[in-house]
Amino acid sequence: MTNVLDDLLDDLVDGRRRALARVLSRVEDGRPSDLRAIAARLHPMGGSARILGVTGSPGVGKSTLTNALTASLREAGRRVAVLAIDPSSPFSGGALLGDRVRMQSHHADDGVYIRSMAARGHLGGLAVATPQAADVLDAAGFDDIIIETVGVGQSEVDVASTADTTLVTLAPGMGDSIQAAKAGILEVADVFVVNKADQSGAGKLASELTGMLEMGHASGAVGADEGDWWPPILRTVAVRGEGVDEVLAAIAEHGEHLDASGARAQRSRARAAGLVRDLALGQVRARFDGDGADETFLHDLADRVVARDLDPWAASDDLVAAIDGAAS
Amino acid sequence: MTNVLDDLLDDLVDGRRRALARVLSRVEDGRPSDLRAIAARLHPMGGSARILGVTGSPGVGKSTLTNALTASLREAGRRVAVLAIDPSSPFSGGALLGDRVRMQSHHADDGVYIRSMAARGHLGGLAVATPQAADVLDAAGFDDIIIETVGVGQSEVDVASTADTTLVTLAPGMGDSIQAAKAGILEVADVFVVNKADQSGAGKLASELTGMLEMGHASGAVGADEGDWWPPILRTVAVRGEGVDEVLAAIAEHGEHLDASGARAQRSRARAAGLVRDLALGQVRARFDGDGADETFLHDLADRVVARDLDPWAASDDLVAAIDGAAS
Repeated sequence: MTNVLDDLLDDLVDGRRRALARVLSRVEDGRPSDLRAIAARLHPMGGSARILGVTGSPGVGKSTLTNALTASLREAGRRVAVLAIDPSSPFSGGALLGDRVRMQSHHADDGVYIRSMAARGHLGGLAVATPQAADVLDAAGFDDIIIETVGVGQSEVDVASTADTTLVTLAPGMGDSIQAAKAGILEVADVFVVNKADQSGAGKLASELTGMLEMGHASGAVGADEGDWWPPILRTVAVRGEGVDEVLAAIAEHGEHLDASGARAQRSRARAAGLVRDLALGQVRARFDGDGADETFLHDLADRVVARDLDPWAASDDLVAAIDGAAS
Repeated sequence: MTNVLDDLLDDLVDGRRRALARVLSRVEDGRPSDLRAIAARLHPMGGSARILGVTGSPGVGKSTLTNALTASLREAGRRVAVLAIDPSSPFSGGALLGDRVRMQSHHADDGVYIRSMAARGHLGGLAVATPQAADVLDAAGFDDIIIETVGVGQSEVDVASTADTTLVTLAPGMGDSIQAAKAGILEVADVFVVNKADQSGAGKLASELTGMLEMGHASGAVGADEGDWWPPILRTVAVRGEGVDEVLAAIAEHGEHLDASGARAQRSRARAAGLVRDLALGQVRARFDGDGADETFLHDLADRVVARDLDPWAASDDLVAAIDGAAS
């Protein structure tokens, strides 16, 4: 019997675009047996692509910046994949509206691939789906993988943990500087991009960012690890391509820093450890979603918690003991 | 030696307001030993408060609605606690700016307690912190606990799983109907509130919601479980208190429905099961955050994943086997 997924993976490795789309849909659907087969086949082939993260609040021009970066990278002869992540859609699983609009400028170019992704029904959510999708694009031979995500708290952290270099995009007049401090993006930004720099307030925003970086440095949140990388603050007008080459230069410089400081190895290891841990916890968690003995045990504990006969922490201790005893 | 926390819990049970604030700070800080002690003492005493969830996008008037609900409940002689959750601040841990503004209208009233909460450094985040904070307020003798949260995806789901009745608040002219479908709030709403109903577009928004409910009903997402509760769509002008009594009537009706249909028991059980599962997974996860043998094993696996010598799923299988073997 022919295995459809194995054939798809053969086709993907042979460079067929349709197979790529179908394998990414399997990643998005998140069936563990599919994910296992995809990882077993493609993970050994990967490791050569550069992964860039682009994050920021809605309206700052992330898609425009991504488009401009893509155009410049294409001019340099690099193959570029864009993965647009929508963390606010755990339920819909639909494609982003922007996709078709964006495809137009690149759709005749075989060296560009643009794809949106939601995390539906995923063990571990985007923290697990994103690196696996990146592995797929890596194995498909792309030189650069741009992961674009809307900035809402945890999602930036997930992007940052997958990307080699994370760009945090801001724009004047959107209250972003406050937003920046709030969501902790100071801690994930390798490069700051002040987009729409031709609008009033861009200079003020850049100064505020500088001030926050200095405060963050003083408190140890910025530049403490990883050999004191100081995130540059660059200005772009992405819609006209202005400043985009400077952003690419900063990305390249950050890449050299990652190698020279040993931070790349450190990040790769931390990223892999986080992924393996999340996958393992997802597997343990899945035992309690079915109808098996583990679920019955959990529901008996829950009944006692509801009856106020056991407190939740005491119940958790009983459950951990049951998990630990699963092999015996 | 006197245990400070035990004394605080004694004072809390005796009704001292300062002790309540300090115990909630301990919940927010999330030290497992504190959380265990708090749960062991207070969980057996709880179970009598009604828990209401109020969610919606920024700007729809959630705080104003909460204020108006609080005023009406106070008139009926009920003691009310408001817990304002900020899911976008995992890093800051600071109080919401709005707190002091809101306190003014109720600060002389001993029957109202208003508190904002972030989830800092928490095993399981808000999904764990919120129900434990609710348990504390319940033990402190409040009749109604209103949990207010900004609607960004997962947080609504967490609120819904803690609350007996969840109000989803919308307002005309904010693109909320699209937002509503996107974030899956159809699945969590027990009551819809169209606030700012004196503004143009309120009627259109209510019709769109009705349409979505009908579609959701057809697809099984609305009214399928829990004995066919059909979420009412109510209009308020919360700033003038208009329509607020109708909202409270709908909440009471939903409460009666929960009892009559058996859905309350079902929800309580599912909520307790989810909480116990999350606590247990948090405990297992914590083993990999330290410097012990489990962490060394994980990092050895991570090194092999980075070297492309092992794929992440195969590494996860090894880790699950190690977790399962922990008791032996």
